[in-house]
Amino acid sequence: MPEAKLLEAFPTPADTPFVIEHVNEEFTSVCPVTGHPDFGSVTLVYEPRGAKAGGTCVELKSLKLYYQSFRNEGIYYEAVTNQIRDDLTRLMKPDWLLIRTDWRGRGGIRSRIFAMHGEVPQHWLR
Amino acid sequence: MPEAKLLEAFPTPADTPFVIEHVNEEFTSVCPVTGHPDFGSVTLVYEPRGAKAGGTCVELKSLKLYYQSFRNEGIYYEAVTNQIRDDLTRLMKPDWLLIRTDWRGRGGIRSRIFAMHGEVPQHWLR
Amino acid sequence: MPEAKLLEAFPTPADTPFVIEHVNEEFTSVCPVTGHPDFGSVTLVYEPRGAKAGGTCVELKSLKLYYQSFRNEGIYYEAVTNQIRDDLTRLMKPDWLLIRTDWRGRGGIRSRIFAMHGEVPQHWLR
Amino acid sequence: MPEAKLLEAFPTPADTPFVIEHVNEEFTSVCPVTGHPDFGSVTLVYEPRGAKAGGTCVELKSLKLYYQSFRNEGIYYEAVTNQIRDDLTRLMKPDWLLIRTDWRGRGGIRSRIFAMHGEVPQHWLR
Amino acid sequence: MPEAKLLEAFPTPADTPFVIEHVNEEFTSVCPVTGHPDFGSVTLVYEPRGAKAGGTCVELKSLKLYYQSFRNEGIYYEAVTNQIRDDLTRLMKPDWLLIRTDWRGRGGIRSRIFAMHGEVPQHWLR
Amino acid sequence: MPEAKLLEAFPTPADTPFVIEHVNEEFTSVCPVTGHPDFGSVTLVYEPRGAKAGGTCVELKSLKLYYQSFRNEGIYYEAVTNQIRDDLTRLMKPDWLLIRTDWRGRGGIRSRIFAMHGEVPQHWLR
Amino acid sequence: MPEAKLLEAFPTPADTPFVIEHVNEEFTSVCPVTGHPDFGSVTLVYEPRGAKAGGTCVELKSLKLYYQSFRNEGIYYEAVTNQIRDDLTRLMKPDWLLIRTDWRGRGGIRSRIFAMHGEVPQHWLR
Amino acid sequence: MPEAKLLEAFPTPADTPFVIEHVNEEFTSVCPVTGHPDFGSVTLVYEPRGAKAGGTCVELKSLKLYYQSFRNEGIYYEAVTNQIRDDLTRLMKPDWLLIRTDWRGRGGIRSRIFAMHGEVPQHWLR
Amino acid sequence: MPEAKLLEAFPTPADTPFVIEHVNEEFTSVCPVTGHPDFGSVTLVYEPRGAKAGGTCVELKSLKLYYQSFRNEGIYYEAVTNQIRDDLTRLMKPDWLLIRTDWRGRGGIRSRIFAMHGEVPQHWLR
Amino acid sequence: MPEAKLLEAFPTPADTPFVIEHVNEEFTSVCPVTGHPDFGSVTLVYEPRGAKAGGTCVELKSLKLYYQSFRNEGIYYEAVTNQIRDDLTRLMKPDWLLIRTDWRGRGGIRSRIFAMHGEVPQHWLR
Repeated sequence: MPEAKLLEAFPTPADTPFVIEHVNEEFTSVCPVTGHPDFGSVTLVYEPRGAKAGGTCVELKSLKLYYQSFRNEGIYYEAVTNQIRDDLTRLMKPDWLLIRTDWRGRGGIRSRIFAMHGEVPQHWLR
Repeated sequence: MPEAKLLEAFPTPADTPFVIEHVNEEFTSVCPVTGHPDFGSVTLVYEPRGAKAGGTCVELKSLKLYYQSFRNEGIYYEAVTNQIRDDLTRLMKPDWLLIRTDWRGRGGIRSRIFAMHGEVPQHWLR
Repeated sequence: MPEAKLLEAFPTPADTPFVIEHVNEEFTSVCPVTGHPDFGSVTLVYEPRGAKAGGTCVELKSLKLYYQSFRNEGIYYEAVTNQIRDDLTRLMKPDWLLIRTDWRGRGGIRSRIFAMHGEVPQHWLR
Repeated sequence: MPEAKLLEAFPTPADTPFVIEHVNEEFTSVCPVTGHPDFGSVTLVYEPRGAKAGGTCVELKSLKLYYQSFRNEGIYYEAVTNQIRDDLTRLMKPDWLLIRTDWRGRGGIRSRIFAMHGEVPQHWLR
Repeated sequence: MPEAKLLEAFPTPADTPFVIEHVNEEFTSVCPVTGHPDFGSVTLVYEPRGAKAGGTCVELKSLKLYYQSFRNEGIYYEAVTNQIRDDLTRLMKPDWLLIRTDWRGRGGIRSRIFAMHGEVPQHWLR
Repeated sequence: MPEAKLLEAFPTPADTPFVIEHVNEEFTSVCPVTGHPDFGSVTLVYEPRGAKAGGTCVELKSLKLYYQSFRNEGIYYEAVTNQIRDDLTRLMKPDWLLIRTDWRGRGGIRSRIFAMHGEVPQHWLR
Repeated sequence: MPEAKLLEAFPTPADTPFVIEHVNEEFTSVCPVTGHPDFGSVTLVYEPRGAKAGGTCVELKSLKLYYQSFRNEGIYYEAVTNQIRDDLTRLMKPDWLLIRTDWRGRGGIRSRIFAMHGEVPQHWLR
Repeated sequence: MPEAKLLEAFPTPADTPFVIEHVNEEFTSVCPVTGHPDFGSVTLVYEPRGAKAGGTCVELKSLKLYYQSFRNEGIYYEAVTNQIRDDLTRLMKPDWLLIRTDWRGRGGIRSRIFAMHGEVPQHWLR
Repeated sequence: MPEAKLLEAFPTPADTPFVIEHVNEEFTSVCPVTGHPDFGSVTLVYEPRGAKAGGTCVELKSLKLYYQSFRNEGIYYEAVTNQIRDDLTRLMKPDWLLIRTDWRGRGGIRSRIFAMHGEVPQHWLR
Repeated sequence: MPEAKLLEAFPTPADTPFVIEHVNEEFTSVCPVTGHPDFGSVTLVYEPRGAKAGGTCVELKSLKLYYQSFRNEGIYYEAVTNQIRDDLTRLMKPDWLLIRTDWRGRGGIRSRIFAMHGEVPQHWLR
């Protein structure tokens, strides 16, 4: 069962613009209708609030355990994406946050879902 | 024969900005002139209206069956793309919707068609 | 319905060792159980008998029409592969022939089937 | 000799924003100085005027024959690109049109030429 | 818990040489020491005995369910690979069978394991 | 019109085993039936006889002009491949020679043709 | 131990807009918690102040030695990225500077960190 | 020694927006400190002034000879890039010009340098 | 300092032919002459003796720690490769073992070293 | 001028089978006819004689300087390849040695040349 309480945060180390991206290519949950497993990746990109504003960053190992807690959960693509966005936003209250899930697909259709919190900062470059 | 009535929708789960992309790489229809099959992929990207505004999302299995209903239809690239745009816009009335079709080609020329409904939201990131 | 009688052959132009490969990446048939379409590619590799021995080569346009005749046939991967091997072997009686089918997959499993007639000639180099 | 009169158009099927891309990877002409053949690809991207405004689309087979008419023409990269832009603009009078030619190169230098008609519409997404 | 009894077989359709490959890129089990999930792919390649010799082929859907039964099993890479080889060999008694598992890795090391039954037939070409 | 007399050779510089490969990715000829251009590449691999045995190598610029002489020739894939094999074998009488043509395809089918002279030497490694 | 004093700079050669990118794919430091090595790449992109404004560029060999000084340092991803940004900003006081670190990952999660100084100049094109 | 006088220009053929890109992947010069050769590529992108404004384009063969004149010159990455930008700007006085050099690297660090003249035109699309 | 005593082995689980490959892409040591770090990957492929013959497999975590023990060792490519081959052969006495090291290179030259113990078994397929 | 006397060797460290590959992707010489530069890569693969038999290995820095000595030499592809084979064979008298040169091409034709000394050992695996 997805457990937001597994997530931990630490104080952000800087006040200057700063963007962090974590890509987990080993995500799996279960289709609530068919019971078959779904496989995909989850990308988190965010800009923490500055250190003086009390900004925090998610701790990497706790993030991994949090993702693993979806393993046997029957849940839709859209719900996974929104729940992760909400749990991480609640944890860090960042200036900006984007969750992108990429799913290997069912019935010949591959899917991607994007969910955001806040406005994309100008400094975010790809 | 393409059948829009195969399409089903469910209520969108969120009010925060939210973008969904479904890629079907197994699309086929028939050239209305030569009778030879055309092969391609269809990409749907859209932002549903928010939950409070009564927004909906297309159901994945119904989308697959809808695409399959073009299989033996004699229809041009441009007409396929516009019809899918229109049928899905009518179903969901989304804030924004993009259909992109990529065709393997006839006579050494590969083609792509883009059709849109609404304005690209700023939150759509690639 | 697959129709071997669509296939045509012409006399091979040479007596020296000679290998021909035709790759069709636009193959589709139908799953006999679920009724859903299957998509894949079919690769034909063969060495015709020499001209003096009455060897023949399959004509390219007739091969395309033959492959298209599987479009709405309910047939298993294995049966497709064996039938193509048998129909082309009967047509050309080549010294060696290999059919390889590559399927995009069902339920997360991609498949390839190889069926042969005769012994691989030493001159076949990749 | 390049022949614009080979080009044919048909009425555009829609009034909503609509972008069409045709990529021909089998283009060849002749260097007017050395007489050696040049090889490249030609990409056409355009947005037709709306149906109510009398917009038209280039017919695919006529486009292919038009491109083939350059085969034995002695002509520079820049002139090929501008001529195709002009001939297609005259045919369709589109809201926007881009020609991109990609050349395999001479003397170790690869080249690309871009020529446009009109302003890039905001809806054009890649 | 891995369950060989989920596996089903059907009679092979041919007597001529015939090789079948199924690639499952969505395999997951659990590390018996750390409890963390392992992700990988499983490739099965085999040549069934001929039809006259009573040869059989594994049914694709049953293979998928069998693979899914490892999902929450604590088991080493080597044991997974050997167990799948043994279960499928027992089911089909094929002339030749190869299992290859590719693991995304732990601690910066990616692994592949190959286990075989019988001798590689000469007709197996890549 | 293909002109073998354009080909020139020079004495091979060595007696030790020696293999030469020239790849021309800019080959074009014309389909004798439809009159449409065919595009492809031609790969020549050969081992010249040793210097003491009077071995020769094809001169690179003459090879290019020879290939260009097919530009407006109506000729089948198979005939192109066999003619190049024969013309170059006659010119150099090498210990071993392989011609591979790769064609971009007609009607959705890509083709490759291999024609050889002599036996593959053991020293040829890829 | 990371040593900013290893860094050297030389006067920038131009007043016109000018952007420099150095990619080091051989970066390693040590995880301060587990003691295991981390591997990644560091990308520096910057626009020096103009020559008349006393702008400077980092000297390439000194940059390499500076990066090597992190080899046995126990330090977090975020701290590495911020320290490099600060040390190079202090050295050159450039108009704009971006540090991007790409990490091969721990526990199945790959990470990227971006830290900036100043505003992205309009002339920076990708 | 780099020789700008090798460069030649011809009148631009058009008044409509027009962008030209030449990529030379075979550039070499010499490191002024170590005397070891540097290898890289040079990309030139520019928009000539219109024909009526007396715009010109660089002639391709003269560009190649100009690049070759750097072969045995001891010169830094930054100086190469700025000199090419200056020499070509002086020759053509274009509306916009970008030079990008990509270097294979020294001591494990790959570099890219961008130098510009003028403002990026809006019509430049990638 | 490389420490073979870090290596641990466990009994092999099978008597049937069995090949194991472990790829470590995060290897680093130090050049004994210049003191600069070397970066590369180490691939181990081996076939353990059968279980009845007392065959063993190297334990994955101990292998990782063993590789890490080279981190600050001044040692040549050739010596690294031979030492790993010898240490692992001594540990497991396998029927066959191959070590391949791939080095990112010094001075523009990339290197690979292969060292073996025993004869390649016929069952090893790629 | 190519100078074999730049090459240095050191005693091989092992008696067990051992293969070494060095790839130099930054090779340049000059076409003796046109005076234009040629660019390519040189791959050396060899198995030294065993240590007890007095086997030696080429020293990497001396190899780099030797390759650089071809920089301004007017020399054909075939001659470069044979000379490098001969110079390195004379230096090391290895059990087996292969030189492969890959040339970026002239006039649209890419070339590869292979020259060998001795017989390919069975242990050489790719």
